[in-house]
Order: sequence, then C-alpha cells, then structure tokens
Amino acid sequence: MEGTIATPVAYEDASPEVRAVYDDIMETKGIDFVPNFWRTVASHPPLLRDIWESLKATMAPGRLDVLTKELIALAVSATNGCDYCINSHTAAARMLGMDDEMLGELMAVVGVFNRTNKLSDAYQVPVDERIKKAVRG
Amino acid sequence: MEGTIATPVAYEDASPEVRAVYDDIMETKGIDFVPNFWRTVASHPPLLRDIWESLKATMAPGRLDVLTKELIALAVSATNGCDYCINSHTAAARMLGMDDEMLGELMAVVGVFNRTNKLSDAYQVPVDERIKKAVRG
Amino acid sequence: MEGTIATPVAYEDASPEVRAVYDDIMETKGIDFVPNFWRTVASHPPLLRDIWESLKATMAPGRLDVLTKELIALAVSATNGCDYCINSHTAAARMLGMDDEMLGELMAVVGVFNRTNKLSDAYQVPVDERIKKAVRG
Amino acid sequence: MEGTIATPVAYEDASPEVRAVYDDIMETKGIDFVPNFWRTVASHPPLLRDIWESLKATMAPGRLDVLTKELIALAVSATNGCDYCINSHTAAARMLGMDDEMLGELMAVVGVFNRTNKLSDAYQVPVDERIKKAVRG
Amino acid sequence: MEGTIATPVAYEDASPEVRAVYDDIMETKGIDFVPNFWRTVASHPPLLRDIWESLKATMAPGRLDVLTKELIALAVSATNGCDYCINSHTAAARMLGMDDEMLGELMAVVGVFNRTNKLSDAYQVPVDERIKKAVRG
Amino acid sequence: MEGTIATPVAYEDASPEVRAVYDDIMETKGIDFVPNFWRTVASHPPLLRDIWESLKATMAPGRLDVLTKELIALAVSATNGCDYCINSHTAAARMLGMDDEMLGELMAVVGVFNRTNKLSDAYQVPVDERIKKAVRG
Repeated sequence: MEGTIATPVAYEDASPEVRAVYDDIMETKGIDFVPNFWRTVASHPPLLRDIWESLKATMAPGRLDVLTKELIALAVSATNGCDYCINSHTAAARMLGMDDEMLGELMAVVGVFNRTNKLSDAYQVPVDERIKKAVRG
Repeated sequence: MEGTIATPVAYEDASPEVRAVYDDIMETKGIDFVPNFWRTVASHPPLLRDIWESLKATMAPGRLDVLTKELIALAVSATNGCDYCINSHTAAARMLGMDDEMLGELMAVVGVFNRTNKLSDAYQVPVDERIKKAVRG
Repeated sequence: MEGTIATPVAYEDASPEVRAVYDDIMETKGIDFVPNFWRTVASHPPLLRDIWESLKATMAPGRLDVLTKELIALAVSATNGCDYCINSHTAAARMLGMDDEMLGELMAVVGVFNRTNKLSDAYQVPVDERIKKAVRG
Repeated sequence: MEGTIATPVAYEDASPEVRAVYDDIMETKGIDFVPNFWRTVASHPPLLRDIWESLKATMAPGRLDVLTKELIALAVSATNGCDYCINSHTAAARMLGMDDEMLGELMAVVGVFNRTNKLSDAYQVPVDERIKKAVRG
Repeated sequence: MEGTIATPVAYEDASPEVRAVYDDIMETKGIDFVPNFWRTVASHPPLLRDIWESLKATMAPGRLDVLTKELIALAVSATNGCDYCINSHTAAARMLGMDDEMLGELMAVVGVFNRTNKLSDAYQVPVDERIKKAVRG
Repeated sequence: MEGTIATPVAYEDASPEVRAVYDDIMETKGIDFVPNFWRTVASHPPLLRDIWESLKATMAPGRLDVLTKELIALAVSATNGCDYCINSHTAAARMLGMDDEMLGELMAVVGVFNRTNKLSDAYQVPVDERIKKAVRG
C-alpha cells in the first residue's frame, strides 16, 4: 500500500492480537479483506484495538438501525470531505440497501445544511428562546 | 433580536413577498413563530426565498423519511459545530419523535466518525480498490 | 469520468429537463462543455436544478460585480480546501481578468485571515462593544 | 476584558515596543482604541508584531482595493465561523462603504459555494482537463 | 447546568456504573468535581464509558510525556475552535506546568501552520518526491 | 511541477531576493532542495518573504523545543487534513527524532480530541466556572 505516512501491517505479518482484531473486523462487516484504514492504524496496535472496539459497539443496531447509522456516518464524512471515509461508507451503505435515490436525497440534505450552517454562523444568529425550550424534548 | 450582523425583519414590517415566505415556513413546519434564522436572512429577500425553496423541496419526504432527514441535518450541524443549527435541528427531530436514546446513538456515531475521518486523512490512507468498485452499487 | 461516487450523466444520455439545464449552464458561463460537477449532481436531477438556479441568480451582477463575486467564491473554496472548486473558480476568475498579481494578493489575504481567525477563536477573544455597534452600519 | 485564556495588555501597561505597535494599528486603521484581538495577542509580544506586520502589508491597496480585500476577509471569516472576525471585518467593511445590499450579496455567495464546495468533495468530482488548462491563465 | 441539548447527570443521581466512571475521572485527573463535559455525555452511558476509557489510555505517559500530550490536545482544540476544549486543555496544561511563554509559543505555532495549511491546499501544492521518501523514517 | 494553480519559481529563474530566501530556507532546515510549497508561494514574492520570516522566527527553539513544535505543527496539519503539510511535518519530525511509537501516540491524541471537540460543540457544553478560573494559571 502506497501513500500512507505509517507502515501498514499485512495480515500475514500481524501479531496474534492484531490478527484477532482483523478477523473480528472481517466477520462483523461480512467482508473477506482487511481495508487499508485498519491496516494503517495497526501500525500503532493500541489505536487499532481502541478504535475498533469503539466503532463496533457504536455501530451495532439500537434505537437507530444499521443503515441509518451508515447514512449518518456518510453525512459526517461528506461534511468533513474525507475521501477514504466517503468511499468506505458509501460502499457500506450500498451493501445495506442504499439506492441511487437515497444517495441523491442524502447529498441534497448535506448540501442544504452546509449552506444554512455557514449562514447561521456568518450572520451570528442567536438561538430562539422557544427553540431552546424544545431542545430537551 | 440582538447579536446578528444584519437587521432582521419582523413579521409586522415584512413586505408581502417576505410575509408569504414566513407564512409558508410556519405552515410547513407546524410552528407559530418565525425563527431568528429566517428573520435574519430576510434582510436580503432573494436569499430568504432561495434558501427556503431549496430547503423545503429537499426536506420533503422521499426515499428517506422526514425524521431520517432531520437526523442527517443534525449530524451535519454537529460536525460543523453550528450552535443555532444544532439547537434548531434537535428541536425539529424531537417534534418528529427523536427520544434520548436516539440522540445518544446519533451523537455516538458523530463522535466515532469524526475521529476516523481525521485519522484517515492524517495517515493519508489510500482508498482500497475493492471499495472503489463497490461504491456505485 | 472516473472517481465520483455517483454515476455522472453525459449530455447525450440526459433527459430533456437535464439537457435544458446543461444548455443554460454552457450559455450563461460562455463555455462549450458541461463541467464534471454538473454532470455529477445530475445523477439526482432535483439537485442539479436547485443548485444551478440558486447559483445562477446569486452570481448575476448586482452591487458586487461578477469578478468580485468570483474572487469571493475562490476565497471560500481556498478556505475550505476544495480541490475541484479552487480549480474551477480560478479558471472562471482568469476568464474575467484576474491576473497573477491579483491571485497573489487574494491568496495573501486568505492566508493572513485564516491565521487570525484561528487565533481569535483559540484565545477566545470577546467582541469589542465598539465593534458590535459599528456592525450594522 | 473577560473571556480570553491569556492576560490581555492594556495600553497603559504596555512596553514601549508594544505601545508602538498599538499606535500604528490605531493610526493605520483610523480608530481610537486598541481592539481586544490585538490586546490579547500582545500577551506574547513577538506574535503581536509578526501578525501586525504581516496583516498591514497584506491589506495595503494593490491590484485589489481595500474594500475588496475586506470583503474577502469577511468571506473567509464567515466560512470559518469566527465570531470575533466576522464582527470585526463587517465593521471595517462598513467604514469602507459596504451597504446592506453588498453584505447580502456577499452572504449569498458565501452560502452558495459552501454548498457546492461540500458537494464537490462529497461526490469526489475529478477536475476537468479543460479547467486544469485554464487555471494558470 | 444550562445550555446543553441533553440532560446532564449529577453525581448524586448517577447510576453506580456512571458514578464509578466519575470517580475514576476525578482520581485520574486529580480534581474534586466532575466537569460538565463528562456529566453531559453521561446522558448516554455507553458514550461516557467509551470516551473515558479511550481518553484515559491515550493520555497515559508513553514515548510522549503528559504535558506534551496536553499541548497537542490544546493545539487540536485551538485549530477546531472548540471553546469548551480550549478552556479545558489550557487549564490542564497549566496544572502540568505550562507557563505564559509556552502558551504564547504554542499559539504562534498554531497560527503559522493554519496559514500554511490553507495556502498549501489553496495553491494545490503537490508533495515533493523527496519528502514522500522521508516520511516513513 | 504539475498541479498547482500558480506558476512555481525554480531556483535558476529566481530573482536575487527570492533566491536569498531559498538559500536561507535550505540552510535553516538543513536540506539541499527548495520544497514545492516555497517555490509555489514565490509566485507572489511578498508572500514568500512574509511567510518565511514568520515561520522561521516561530519555529526557533524557545520554551518549547524544536521537536515539540514540529509535533504541534503535525497535529494542526492532521486536524486540518492538509496532505502537503502532513507529509512535510512528518518528514521534519522524523529528522528530529520522531520514532514510530511517538507518531502513533501523537495520532492517538489527535483522534481522541477530534472526537471530544466535536461532541463538546455538538452537545453545547458550557465551560465550568472552575475551569475558567484555572485557565490563566
């Protein structure tokens, strides 16, 4: 793998601990390869373990289903302009059933609110008292 | 309204064109006041009209339902750290049924992927060929 | 076109509605091809129409002339680090007369205020009362 | 001055070197007080001097006039959501003749391109070859 | 506590699991109160536990000492313009010995590289081959 | 050099003033080539001079040593996702002794606080009074 600033860890060269995380990633995600992101953070094994455990627990279905969580992850990644993540979460959402129409609608929402976010900040709009009261449900 | 850098337009002082947009906002959103954001962008009427039309069409239910769209809007606003927008979309999502558990899960997803977004960029991880192929579904 | 996560729409394959927008883009901008950005957002036709109408109205000459608007667009794109947009607005500003000296001065301004923006936030500097009073002109 | 994380330096307490910069700021900008930003960065005198010299040289009229430079500074600050800077550059632009219409048009441009910036990145749109060729003028 | 969009959890009202995390935070950081951040994320207990464990392990002394890690955390927070975090990490760095001079130098570095970061992106500067080769040490 | 939107200045073609800056860069940094960033900003000579002088003074050893300053610069660049800068500061930190373990720990810190930064903003957590008091040391 070219390009990263750290030395990625191939499955063959991984320590048993790293390999166990790799196996869990592939099984949980239903894929048969270790994506470049995980092979790169494995250059610092505590980082691999910490991120994977955190991500695995967070992405398990709860009150929000898995596709909704992936759509949120994609919206976050699109807002941050993270190339790797946009590709990765688009692929994951596709596997979970995102069709072209859903992608188009998600992008439309991302675009609209990046505009209003900037304008709210730019105009320094104060939060309405009525909105503040409604926030905690 | 204090704080904004432009002169907001009260309902009473609004031109008929601006007032028509205000009425449509309140009716569409099911609220009985004009939020500060809209009163502020009304300082430049073409901006009010353009943003409202774009937002109204984008937020109509489609392949994604309205709550999912609000959750995505909240995730975008949280990623951008936009105070006004975070409050506004939290309040809107509450009206549509977001409970504490859903808010907590959404925040967890936002947190996890802001971390991995930064690390993907920081390590300069290249996109996997297999992910590229899966992206267009 | 490689690289995008959506399926771009070529002029030949476009529906009459999409083609009408393409024609308007080329005529308004005085170019004889449909840039990749527009062909990509055309994968979700309502997005194409909404963005183009909004952009076309916003970029028409008003109290600010067209070159000034393009310079502002370039400053925004440079601050966001958007590769496509930096190239696109630089090319557009060139067509409108931006020379090397103007580009250098614009970049200098962008650099200086990205520094002071971060330091104002970092030091948590409160807005002066006298500045607040001067803001609405 | 409350709120900043450093100890601001009042004019009365300033060293002769810092006071000389303060005097130059007030004279150059045509104001009769030292804004909070400058009093805060004066907590580290080399920072005060370095930023002021850089900013003063950059904002002098050149191929771009002073108002255009302030509009660009405001667009950068709006894109970054920097409260202090938005207020400060709005006030400065007002002194140089920015009217409500110009402010509204600037905000409209900022809003439109923050949307397209995010969508260009989100869709991973590659730069057109023809645009690349036009970039260097 | 006013202001947050979630309902914070006071020590008295906390479940035994949440209270155990609170105790660990206070002991590890050598403070006698539970900061607002932790009381807020406790509104979603899995988030409290996950973030605390990740943060505690990451901030333990290693090849980088604790003060250096806090300075890096402050630089990240300053770059993101996160009010809460800037205050929190400044206070923590103070406890670990950061003096005014060190704060000033850190801010100077943050300012300089936010400028060059933006200009590198804005000018679309390609990475030198020699730099690429030096990156992995 | 391909890719940049300005015309870079080769050492051979540089004016005596630009060449003097190039020589100072190579001598100060202990390298025998002029990195692409400097050759690009030299397209606007006042920018080259201003940035170099500012950067050179800021990066000189003071209360913070040079490696610590480079680590901070790398954390800033990683947070901003600036490709050129991440590569450049990683290479510089390597020359100053950063090993794989230090890089891994730095990345871990960057990741953790990008997460908490976003969540502090997202939840709108107010700064604790006790933290405010501790901030000025």
